[in-house]
Amino acid sequence: MTSNARVVFAKRPASNELPKVGEHLIIDKSRTIDLDHVPLNGGYLTKTLILSPEPAIRERMRDPSITSYTTTLTVGGPILGFAVVVVLRSEKEGFKVGDNLYGLTVWEEYTVQPYVEGRVNFKPEEWPPYTFDMDSLALQVVPNPNGLYPLSKYTSIMGTPGLTAFVGMEGIIEGKEGDTLFVSSGDLLMVIQLGKLKGMKVIASAGSDAKVEYMKSVGADLAFNYKKENYGEFLLKHGPINAFWDNVGGEALDAALESITPYGKVAVCGTSASDVTPTSEQYKLKNAYLIMKKRIKIQGFIVPDFIPQFMGKFFETVPALMAQGKLKSQEIEIEGFENAPQALVDTLCSGHEKAGTLVVVVAKE
Amino acid sequence: MTSNARVVFAKRPASNELPKVGEHLIIDKSRTIDLDHVPLNGGYLTKTLILSPEPAIRERMRDPSITSYTTTLTVGGPILGFAVVVVLRSEKEGFKVGDNLYGLTVWEEYTVQPYVEGRVNFKPEEWPPYTFDMDSLALQVVPNPNGLYPLSKYTSIMGTPGLTAFVGMEGIIEGKEGDTLFVSSGDLLMVIQLGKLKGMKVIASAGSDAKVEYMKSVGADLAFNYKKENYGEFLLKHGPINAFWDNVGGEALDAALESITPYGKVAVCGTSASDVTPTSEQYKLKNAYLIMKKRIKIQGFIVPDFIPQFMGKFFETVPALMAQGKLKSQEIEIEGFENAPQALVDTLCSGHEKAGTLVVVVAKE
Repeated sequence: MTSNARVVFAKRPASNELPKVGEHLIIDKSRTIDLDHVPLNGGYLTKTLILSPEPAIRERMRDPSITSYTTTLTVGGPILGFAVVVVLRSEKEGFKVGDNLYGLTVWEEYTVQPYVEGRVNFKPEEWPPYTFDMDSLALQVVPNPNGLYPLSKYTSIMGTPGLTAFVGMEGIIEGKEGDTLFVSSGDLLMVIQLGKLKGMKVIASAGSDAKVEYMKSVGADLAFNYKKENYGEFLLKHGPINAFWDNVGGEALDAALESITPYGKVAVCGTSASDVTPTSEQYKLKNAYLIMKKRIKIQGFIVPDFIPQFMGKFFETVPALMAQGKLKSQEIEIEGFENAPQALVDTLCSGHEKAGTLVVVVAKE
Repeated sequence: MTSNARVVFAKRPASNELPKVGEHLIIDKSRTIDLDHVPLNGGYLTKTLILSPEPAIRERMRDPSITSYTTTLTVGGPILGFAVVVVLRSEKEGFKVGDNLYGLTVWEEYTVQPYVEGRVNFKPEEWPPYTFDMDSLALQVVPNPNGLYPLSKYTSIMGTPGLTAFVGMEGIIEGKEGDTLFVSSGDLLMVIQLGKLKGMKVIASAGSDAKVEYMKSVGADLAFNYKKENYGEFLLKHGPINAFWDNVGGEALDAALESITPYGKVAVCGTSASDVTPTSEQYKLKNAYLIMKKRIKIQGFIVPDFIPQFMGKFFETVPALMAQGKLKSQEIEIEGFENAPQALVDTLCSGHEKAGTLVVVVAKE
């Protein structure tokens, strides 16, 4: 028998609370698995290689009565999130031993797939419409990098963060040469780089000086630390902007509405400024009245909304850009499964001051 | 010589002030015109038949330093607004004596067209981009109704209010059978009727019981008086909604964001709740964070944004619908040029409790 540690969602944090390691997130090391004989029931057995701590996991921790775009986590059940895994055994066509997969899975060392535990309702046709999304991002086979790039690229620039950037730029921003794009916070290196490839001027904001430098290093024309400089003042000075990639909401969105030109476009793919804010204390937008005055188009989206339209183009375009050296990304590798809970908390509170995408390396192969 | 009265913009109201007759708007009866000999300089002479008091005129009264979608009015100059006119003399090809025209003009009894006075800058190529719009809606020849319908239809359901409804429904709402549409206030009879023609359930709000009844009479399934019932409570009880036609902003938009389904669409074509509110006191939107959670699409627009795309379809569709008796509208006729200023103020403050579109009949022919 082999030890099979998992990250357990032990307690639901209050709506305004960041989860804490040891209280809301605990490592359960009591479980074991028989890798050679565990029944696969027509599925396949995977070993976890890399975990991807992402803000969307916080959304799953909310009170189940609150409508949002994902199903909620079950207290006592495992954390669900994105990961890169390798197939150890398989009874399922299309999944061969040694295949690398990327997608949503249980945060544990070994899993019989497709996983059921932790999934609120396994029948997608019974999900309410608002949960159509993230659960549809099942594990899928990804190309073997053959040593050309680390597997961790699949959890950053070639995973949902990169895919989000790609589909949002194609489907909403539709940037053109000479336009100015403002990109707010988060791990947005792909947005910056796609903007530059389209010939846009890119202004970026982040929560640490290291991230500001990182954003400049991947091509941002201007970048500022929003903890030191005011969104509104910076944009008034260096704008106007033609488009806003919003991963923050609140004050950043207000400043963008003020600085944006008529017919400006706003792609909203995150609300990190308010993810742990109770409804009654949500930031109140001052500049909503400008939506009509400036004929602004604002669209909220998540990756699955655009997958049918742009997934093919993503895989035609992005690996080629990478091979040509036209895309940069930096992953901060945290070693060891036991550090996954803290990496998730660090992602949520932007506690990691360093630049780059946090990835948790559980095993090398 | 013939007397040629005009409505003069005598004083700029403060940003939070409704214009007053006699102070901000005055009738100047001192002017005369020689109808037979006034030089046309290659243009044409028009007689005003019907004036259309519309909220957009208030926007033109703002301080010129404030960016918006129209040029501003000049203090001491005439009011500019939509009107139906008839051609008395012409030196311009395409404009014959007796033609009825609809579009933007000077609010006076007789005008040598194209008018120049009151237009901030007569060269469209020199306008800043945000004023591309209303000024482009120049006078154009409209079909002679030949007694089948009154000319005043051109200032309501067959004018910019109807055209706004048409292009917003085609370009943004794209409603489909079974969807629920919420329509907020204003003279929105065309939106309601187009929604019903698409098979939508329509919920409407208005500021008087008479208007509520009017909205029901043109087909709204449900309608309520927002001065008596709360937007949020009504929509929670009778929603959810799939789309929102927003002519109000503020509290109505907040309630709609709360009640709207995922992938809901919001067409914003007015902000009547805040048109006279200073920037610092604008309603602050509580539910902006739901834009991403529900992947809502919000788009501000005005008619000219969609004219190239949908103007042809409008004139193919709407007169036919009218001939078939499938469109209702009611105009409240105010007789006499001298009542134009008060009609405009009544439109702005929703002071007219009656249902229907206010029109000022200056002359019958």
